[in-house]
Amino acid sequence: MSTIDLNCDMGESFGAYRMGRDEELLDYITSANIACGFHAGDPSTMRRTVQMAIEKNVAIGAHPGLPDLEGFGRRRMDISYDEAYDMVLYQIGSLQAFVKASGSSLNHVKPHGALYNMAAKDNDLADAIAQAVHDVDSSLILFGLSGSELVKAGKERGLHTASEVFADRTYQQDGSLTSRNHSEALITDEKESIKQVIRMAKENKVRTLQGDDIHLEADTVCIHGDGPHAVPFATSLIKAFEESNILCKSIETSK
Amino acid sequence: MSTIDLNCDMGESFGAYRMGRDEELLDYITSANIACGFHAGDPSTMRRTVQMAIEKNVAIGAHPGLPDLEGFGRRRMDISYDEAYDMVLYQIGSLQAFVKASGSSLNHVKPHGALYNMAAKDNDLADAIAQAVHDVDSSLILFGLSGSELVKAGKERGLHTASEVFADRTYQQDGSLTSRNHSEALITDEKESIKQVIRMAKENKVRTLQGDDIHLEADTVCIHGDGPHAVPFATSLIKAFEESNILCKSIETSK
Amino acid sequence: MSTIDLNCDMGESFGAYRMGRDEELLDYITSANIACGFHAGDPSTMRRTVQMAIEKNVAIGAHPGLPDLEGFGRRRMDISYDEAYDMVLYQIGSLQAFVKASGSSLNHVKPHGALYNMAAKDNDLADAIAQAVHDVDSSLILFGLSGSELVKAGKERGLHTASEVFADRTYQQDGSLTSRNHSEALITDEKESIKQVIRMAKENKVRTLQGDDIHLEADTVCIHGDGPHAVPFATSLIKAFEESNILCKSIETSK
Amino acid sequence: MSTIDLNCDMGESFGAYRMGRDEELLDYITSANIACGFHAGDPSTMRRTVQMAIEKNVAIGAHPGLPDLEGFGRRRMDISYDEAYDMVLYQIGSLQAFVKASGSSLNHVKPHGALYNMAAKDNDLADAIAQAVHDVDSSLILFGLSGSELVKAGKERGLHTASEVFADRTYQQDGSLTSRNHSEALITDEKESIKQVIRMAKENKVRTLQGDDIHLEADTVCIHGDGPHAVPFATSLIKAFEESNILCKSIETSK
Repeated sequence: MSTIDLNCDMGESFGAYRMGRDEELLDYITSANIACGFHAGDPSTMRRTVQMAIEKNVAIGAHPGLPDLEGFGRRRMDISYDEAYDMVLYQIGSLQAFVKASGSSLNHVKPHGALYNMAAKDNDLADAIAQAVHDVDSSLILFGLSGSELVKAGKERGLHTASEVFADRTYQQDGSLTSRNHSEALITDEKESIKQVIRMAKENKVRTLQGDDIHLEADTVCIHGDGPHAVPFATSLIKAFEESNILCKSIETSK
Repeated sequence: MSTIDLNCDMGESFGAYRMGRDEELLDYITSANIACGFHAGDPSTMRRTVQMAIEKNVAIGAHPGLPDLEGFGRRRMDISYDEAYDMVLYQIGSLQAFVKASGSSLNHVKPHGALYNMAAKDNDLADAIAQAVHDVDSSLILFGLSGSELVKAGKERGLHTASEVFADRTYQQDGSLTSRNHSEALITDEKESIKQVIRMAKENKVRTLQGDDIHLEADTVCIHGDGPHAVPFATSLIKAFEESNILCKSIETSK
Repeated sequence: MSTIDLNCDMGESFGAYRMGRDEELLDYITSANIACGFHAGDPSTMRRTVQMAIEKNVAIGAHPGLPDLEGFGRRRMDISYDEAYDMVLYQIGSLQAFVKASGSSLNHVKPHGALYNMAAKDNDLADAIAQAVHDVDSSLILFGLSGSELVKAGKERGLHTASEVFADRTYQQDGSLTSRNHSEALITDEKESIKQVIRMAKENKVRTLQGDDIHLEADTVCIHGDGPHAVPFATSLIKAFEESNILCKSIETSK
Repeated sequence: MSTIDLNCDMGESFGAYRMGRDEELLDYITSANIACGFHAGDPSTMRRTVQMAIEKNVAIGAHPGLPDLEGFGRRRMDISYDEAYDMVLYQIGSLQAFVKASGSSLNHVKPHGALYNMAAKDNDLADAIAQAVHDVDSSLILFGLSGSELVKAGKERGLHTASEVFADRTYQQDGSLTSRNHSEALITDEKESIKQVIRMAKENKVRTLQGDDIHLEADTVCIHGDGPHAVPFATSLIKAFEESNILCKSIETSK
């Protein structure tokens, strides 16, 4: 029986601003990546999100991003490798405090947005992030795009890694995600999206936007938590997993 | 022989902005309170300051403040007790990550500026802060103004506490510091300032601005790290401690 | 025939965060108070909101707030009068640039949240704000709580002022709004709320929470732009104005 | 007799953080580019800097930057052209309010740091900035690197432009500044630096790092306001201008 982890970015509300249907989606997912106050999130949102995740028995990860709340961490910034190390370490530490204060422990780290995309291709940046994760706790699992420099850097640092695939994003020949600026970046048809996930999970293959099949690893699949379709999509995906005999469970190391 | 801890707020630079003569002062002090990115400081400054403190064998504390960089954490804000708990927990966690990544461990927590002053008088706020400290690590030492609600709240939560006195601030009858808005808030005469510290350390007494002697505890004395007189003052104070047979050492619990 | 202005706070989205049903409500209101990037709003949101208001022929006001995005400008901060003057001048200037670039002109200024409430009672703060408004353009109309120090300060500076009343807030004996911390701060019954507005508009009276009638001026009434009831409430209120023979129009000076 | 404008970036302090010797340098320069609160500066600093510039009869420009205080606006960010337009318009508007409130008028606009460098090469970005300047006031002078897309875009929009050269930076073959990451980016020898300026002013030529002479326009020369050498350097430069019969005066249009 195949297994797969189902993750979602969470805790992205900020002050009076609400984002994401976190509480509902926690009933479906197995890993929650919680924003740490840089691209989204604030201390009170972090505490509440951590507590909900613990109540619903979902594995908790830190979701560090660039210091750009206005751009939601999606605008590339020319940060140095030292700055990357420092901002990732800082953010993991802050979330870890909430997790520990609630009597649980941090499971994984997944960089957000532009930081995630930059680290997929820039080996030095990937290594700075992997080192930060390692320096907080070497048993943390580093989530990165399947085939990315980030996953490679994590393995080189001796970390457990999880190769991530996306339910509703199209892929390029080199395994990268089609840029959000591209008109076909998103798969809007739910069935198409589910078919892509199931095939990635069972066959480790995806059809690129250019029409070729490429190989990828699918340890964890990311679903989006915002928008009216988030919950119905999660329901359908879980059902498809069951029908395809894929067990949905979080990735855990022998801590 | 009396002992006293000598503490200084540090790591208050931000990006391209420099503040404080941290490197020089670390040769004199025994405890460094390092800003955590809210009222001052940034991740890279935190890492560098932690490393310097470790090299110079100075005890490291978190120095959490209000989320008000523009006001340097000195403007009172009407935050809720939950927000206080959350922002203190967040900031301690972020600094702790740097300390642990450098192979050391966090020793204490001292709130900054308006948060410190508000917590000196507001028991519920003091308790929220004490609880945050406790929830990160119950062996951390909570620094608070001598006689303050913060020290009381820390004791009630079962924390080790350190009663703090100030070298260059004048005192009111109730043991509070004279407000910075008052023209006589600061003691600018170095000799006067040193005399006040030595008396607080040896006799547990201070002459208030109103002319009466009041009792206080002096576990740790705060000196300021900015301005041209910071280093000469530290030199003179250390010399006065020696002449008065006061041993200057950090406060440590039996961790 | 009585006339009244109907105003709503707008442009309070920030980056990826959406707030308020601005586009829909602009069909009902006569004055839009647009956030200026401190408590809410960002440059792109400001431009879009200004353009929508111009298209729908709604008078445009600046809605300056405290520099506290996380607290949505609702947490009191101990700012100095100079800081108040400076932050209000800055915010009016930034919005004015968008209004002028779109070929229109700024009509009024209404402080937001805690700044509004603080300026209702603190005469010096009120005067600092009035002076900032005056220094940008002495023909701008200053909106303030009916009976407040802000309205008084505006008159003393020679500004046109508009006394504001609230549709869904309860009143205290001194004419102040019941604090949001109080369980009866908000009027949740739509009919009750409309009845209060009509009476304020026609009789210049409101029944306080304590049960007495007090006098107030009602040049402009504030409705809230967020929540599912915002649009239906606006529809009902407009209808009630028509039935009561109250003409709804913006306040304009003879510029 | 040749003329040249001498400009300096100013008002880059933030809250408790001091930067630059603004007051002293205002005795030497003819144009002050004042930060607007994004990469540096805050409303109170803006007011004070504007007032000092007016007292010393120095032409005032807005100095808009990227929204990155921590990186001092020096880190490139992937902003859209609309975002660039909006953030430049916002910042000019905010500074203009202080200038007008002080009874003076804004003279020019010079983008800061990464925004300046990006706009030197990206025509669409340059045009977005030029449009923002034009939309605030078409008589404003746009400062840009000599030979840059920004100067071109300004001319195409019908703006007055000023071609800027740098006293202490080395040049590349294409007229761009050597990147700050390069070891020879800065000219540290004062005499060398002054020689470069005088030659640029009189002959419109500079020797590149590669050893060739290239042509440039030198309407205005930028000096740096920070560091211990800022004031002595300004003194020497002014003396060199006098000896070379170069008149130092601000650029003004016939407003």
